[in-house]
Amino acid sequence: MEIGSASGDKAGVFTQGRRWLNALPVKFKDKVADTATNIKKVGQDDPRRVIHSLKVGLALALVSIFYYYQPLYSNFGVTAMWAIMTVVVVFEFSVGATLGKGLNRGMATLLASALGVGAHHLANLSGHVGEPILLGSLVFLQAAISTFLRFFPKIKARYDYGLLIFILTFSLISISGFRDDEILELAHKRVLTIFVGGCACVIISIVVFPVWAGEDLHNLIALNIEKLGNFLEGFGDEYFKRTGDAESKDDKKYLEGYKSVLNSKTGEESLANFAAWEPGHGRFQFRHPWKQYLKVGTLARECAYRIEALNGYLNADIQASSEVRSRIQEACTNVSIESGKALKELSLTMKKMVQPSSADSHIENAKSAAKNLKSLLKSGLWEDTDLLKVIPGITVASILNEVVKCTENIAESVHELASIAQFKSVERTVSPEKLHSGQPQNIKSAQMVNYSHVVVNVRESTMAASPSEISSAPKAIKHNMEV
Amino acid sequence: MEIGSASGDKAGVFTQGRRWLNALPVKFKDKVADTATNIKKVGQDDPRRVIHSLKVGLALALVSIFYYYQPLYSNFGVTAMWAIMTVVVVFEFSVGATLGKGLNRGMATLLASALGVGAHHLANLSGHVGEPILLGSLVFLQAAISTFLRFFPKIKARYDYGLLIFILTFSLISISGFRDDEILELAHKRVLTIFVGGCACVIISIVVFPVWAGEDLHNLIALNIEKLGNFLEGFGDEYFKRTGDAESKDDKKYLEGYKSVLNSKTGEESLANFAAWEPGHGRFQFRHPWKQYLKVGTLARECAYRIEALNGYLNADIQASSEVRSRIQEACTNVSIESGKALKELSLTMKKMVQPSSADSHIENAKSAAKNLKSLLKSGLWEDTDLLKVIPGITVASILNEVVKCTENIAESVHELASIAQFKSVERTVSPEKLHSGQPQNIKSAQMVNYSHVVVNVRESTMAASPSEISSAPKAIKHNMEV
Repeated sequence: MEIGSASGDKAGVFTQGRRWLNALPVKFKDKVADTATNIKKVGQDDPRRVIHSLKVGLALALVSIFYYYQPLYSNFGVTAMWAIMTVVVVFEFSVGATLGKGLNRGMATLLASALGVGAHHLANLSGHVGEPILLGSLVFLQAAISTFLRFFPKIKARYDYGLLIFILTFSLISISGFRDDEILELAHKRVLTIFVGGCACVIISIVVFPVWAGEDLHNLIALNIEKLGNFLEGFGDEYFKRTGDAESKDDKKYLEGYKSVLNSKTGEESLANFAAWEPGHGRFQFRHPWKQYLKVGTLARECAYRIEALNGYLNADIQASSEVRSRIQEACTNVSIESGKALKELSLTMKKMVQPSSADSHIENAKSAAKNLKSLLKSGLWEDTDLLKVIPGITVASILNEVVKCTENIAESVHELASIAQFKSVERTVSPEKLHSGQPQNIKSAQMVNYSHVVVNVRESTMAASPSEISSAPKAIKHNMEV
Repeated sequence: MEIGSASGDKAGVFTQGRRWLNALPVKFKDKVADTATNIKKVGQDDPRRVIHSLKVGLALALVSIFYYYQPLYSNFGVTAMWAIMTVVVVFEFSVGATLGKGLNRGMATLLASALGVGAHHLANLSGHVGEPILLGSLVFLQAAISTFLRFFPKIKARYDYGLLIFILTFSLISISGFRDDEILELAHKRVLTIFVGGCACVIISIVVFPVWAGEDLHNLIALNIEKLGNFLEGFGDEYFKRTGDAESKDDKKYLEGYKSVLNSKTGEESLANFAAWEPGHGRFQFRHPWKQYLKVGTLARECAYRIEALNGYLNADIQASSEVRSRIQEACTNVSIESGKALKELSLTMKKMVQPSSADSHIENAKSAAKNLKSLLKSGLWEDTDLLKVIPGITVASILNEVVKCTENIAESVHELASIAQFKSVERTVSPEKLHSGQPQNIKSAQMVNYSHVVVNVRESTMAASPSEISSAPKAIKHNMEV
């Protein structure tokens, strides 16, 4: 019986093995198809990624001329490899990151080379036995101190890479000096090739389809505010929906968009750090107030926390009774839609870089709608109702009230940004239709949006945009919006 | 008059200059004092930073022996610099990060060297003119493809550095081959020195005061849950405080602690990525379920969003009337304190790595307190009150109800973690006092905590901890708690 069972097992293993083998081509095909979709998705999410990859290839191919071209090679020899190394490690996705790393690497190499040569000469004086001891101690000391400096938050944000390269170069130069007395020439060649490699990166990243971290930050913050607006515009309809009105999940993607705002802090901060390295570009001047974007971003995140709380009530087990709902439906929906409109208007004016005054009217509407909601709650319509059925409704109303406050804060910070960064004021010649041409219309309630009450400021200003400038802006933004 | 004003200006400038010069020593002194405090703070926040800096210095001093020691230098020559480079770029703060980078660098170097040598031989076949063209194209292609791969989120999380080194090594080896025919030896020496450098990093980082990313992640999650618990324990007292009961701001630090939880996602994810590289250490086995910590972390963050909403009501302009407050005070405070206790108990059991069953009773208490609160609201005590004065109170109650749900979710995920990671069950021999010896008692309401109803499981288990093991755990944790 034991044998039988064993042979049965064996047959089983064989059958399983055959089945597995038969399934292999199918599995393999699935895997390949899966990978292909994945590749396509990564490329489509941001086509700039494909371009960036080609740019890195180009830069590398360019600096390898150091090896191929005889006159260059006879000058630089193997130090040419520093140019290649520089390109590989310095070339980053955005211009700001590339410039930051390049400048860090350049300055650190220069400084560390000088100090390294100094250390070498100092060590030279201390005799054959003392030299390695002194050199070793110096290397130990500078590595420990520089490593410790990298823990300081401010230094880490901007000069982390510079310190790394400082440790590296100082160690290499001072230690190499122990074996090679032509250390000055070595340092000189290294600085030169690193300079060439760094320049290749910076020039290619600026000239060939540049990706500006500053522009990305600008668009990210505007997009985040728009996402909050999308949720709020749709929230009223969603919360007070009639049964049977169930839409497909795809239509409700805008209700999930805000979730990415909750965790966007790290991304925003690194973009702002990169942007600080960038020269003026496009619509942004050199000292554009990037820090102010972080303030706007923080306030947007605070609003997103409130929205997260609202979202909890969309799918809560205990809902307000339909009677209660129908009573507060109009007021709540108004507050929500007007806040949403205000946020989307703010986002739009940010994208166009015009004064955000057109959002003010929506904020006023939202505030008065919130007041209406309050007096509705006060009016004692509730006394005959079971309070437990009222609570979810009241909580939603209360959170919406908070959302209005958050919206006001965001608007204030965007106003501040607009005045620091000298955004243009909207000219009368720009028709509201044109101003809104870039706005996505994928939301049901957007049909209800009435643009006729957009406030249009008339200001005599040399900075005022020509209509063509404003209406052409969305095209430039569009391909950059997904960060 | 013009002249007079100019000389006046000049005198002004001089006076200003003198004043500035006089102020300089004071300013300088202030600056130095400031920097000194800053340095002290960075070191005190986490003393492991100082040790890490010394470890990097030590590793660098060690590998520079490649240069100083004649027999080694005559073997390796200038390729010894790769050992130094490896140490500088691979040595990271935690063992996991160092191991991950080291393995990435090692594997990528090996693979890229092999492919680079292959490319060199292929190019050799294509004649003197074709060689640089073929080499250039190959370098371009692999750089573009590898750079594109770095955009895939899964690859970026674990193999980003490996791909960077792959591009670097392939380019260097294949291009160097154009000039140097001893390319095989070059590749061989490079792999060997990088191996030595990498080993030096890994060994020093494991042997000398190791910093384990896994342990840090474990402590970070436990600390985050504790912070939420601290807020909730203190919230009741704070919200319903009698006027004149104002404490100094220092005492209220625990009310702000939760804010760091809101933005901890990125940190948690990178720690989990590093931890995945680490071997078993201390109380953690090799395949410890680090991913489960991310789940617990996400749920803790969701709870933190609710707490952020609660916090908004602490400082709101419109408060519930004192009548309303006094009515709901007891029930709300109970819910809040019991949830807080449950979370702190969960955090404590996590720190001790014991089954979290002792938190269950608090969760039951919190749930029944929430039920009480509900029936209190239902009891129609309100009919004669102005509803607008009731709303903030009702909202707070409603959010507290959500917090109880979040606490349940966190407890569930911690239970799951405990069962996957096979946490020990608490033995009867461990007295509750001992179990709680590590708990901070800095909170006013902690005086009210009654530990007598801690559930103590008795289980016959080979994994059960001896009392001494459990009571000695806090010491080991303490110095690692600040991440």
